[in-house]
Amino acid sequence: MNEEFDVQVKQIEELLRHVAFIIKKRGRDILSDFGITNPQFNALLVLDSHPDITMGELCERLYLACSTATDLIDRMEKNGLLERRRDPEDRRVIRLRTMPKAKEVIEQVIQARRRYVKSILTKLDEKDIETLARSLQQLHSLMTEENLPSQ
Amino acid sequence: MNEEFDVQVKQIEELLRHVAFIIKKRGRDILSDFGITNPQFNALLVLDSHPDITMGELCERLYLACSTATDLIDRMEKNGLLERRRDPEDRRVIRLRTMPKAKEVIEQVIQARRRYVKSILTKLDEKDIETLARSLQQLHSLMTEENLPSQ
Repeated sequence: MNEEFDVQVKQIEELLRHVAFIIKKRGRDILSDFGITNPQFNALLVLDSHPDITMGELCERLYLACSTATDLIDRMEKNGLLERRRDPEDRRVIRLRTMPKAKEVIEQVIQARRRYVKSILTKLDEKDIETLARSLQQLHSLMTEENLPSQ
Repeated sequence: MNEEFDVQVKQIEELLRHVAFIIKKRGRDILSDFGITNPQFNALLVLDSHPDITMGELCERLYLACSTATDLIDRMEKNGLLERRRDPEDRRVIRLRTMPKAKEVIEQVIQARRRYVKSILTKLDEKDIETLARSLQQLHSLMTEENLPSQ
């Protein structure tokens, strides 16, 4: 019984690692068409859903060292994807906001990713798609629950 | 019908992106205890399962530009994780091989990843675990099939 569980753990760890690797690789291919990297895209997604976020909050949400995030932000500002603004209430605080170009990039990247997922899902029947969605939803809930203390 | 499918595509793309992000983040936390990065660990896994691989083959399998892979390999050689050897049959060819320390790192990293996956799966019942394994297996097969031309 316990042994069977260990076999499942081993199998699922390997599958998750491989699937995550392929998703990342696919994502990188799509992003290279837009001249941005994976960490830059993750930053754009965070900035888009949290306008006027501070640098410190961004680092936390991306789980990145602030020196690494600063480099990212520098490159993206130069690229016209975002702007830094001083907080009018406290001029020591820098806030970040996406530029219209970022929305366009995000929209097109997500569309390309959906096309890829669609090309895979069309090979599954309706029941298998529902089961996959449910399993992933369950896994994601448990993973974010697990992650709560650091989010 | 078609609309429902589009909703599922949208949902599954988002779940896969989020799950892959968490897996990567968790993996990075584990690897930082061993002083290596995610791309370095991926290289170790490839080298471990393909002893005496050439530099060109490694780049292909990691989907990395060879200049990026060379930097990775330099750092790992300095770290005592692998060695470069000239092919005795053709001295222009450089072959790569892991050192014993690499096996140890891989083993410990995989164990830590399994502990994480186990901590999640213990919250699911037996039937849900089986369903998750089956769904991931199906997804992985379709993704690697899709990827075949470049592997």
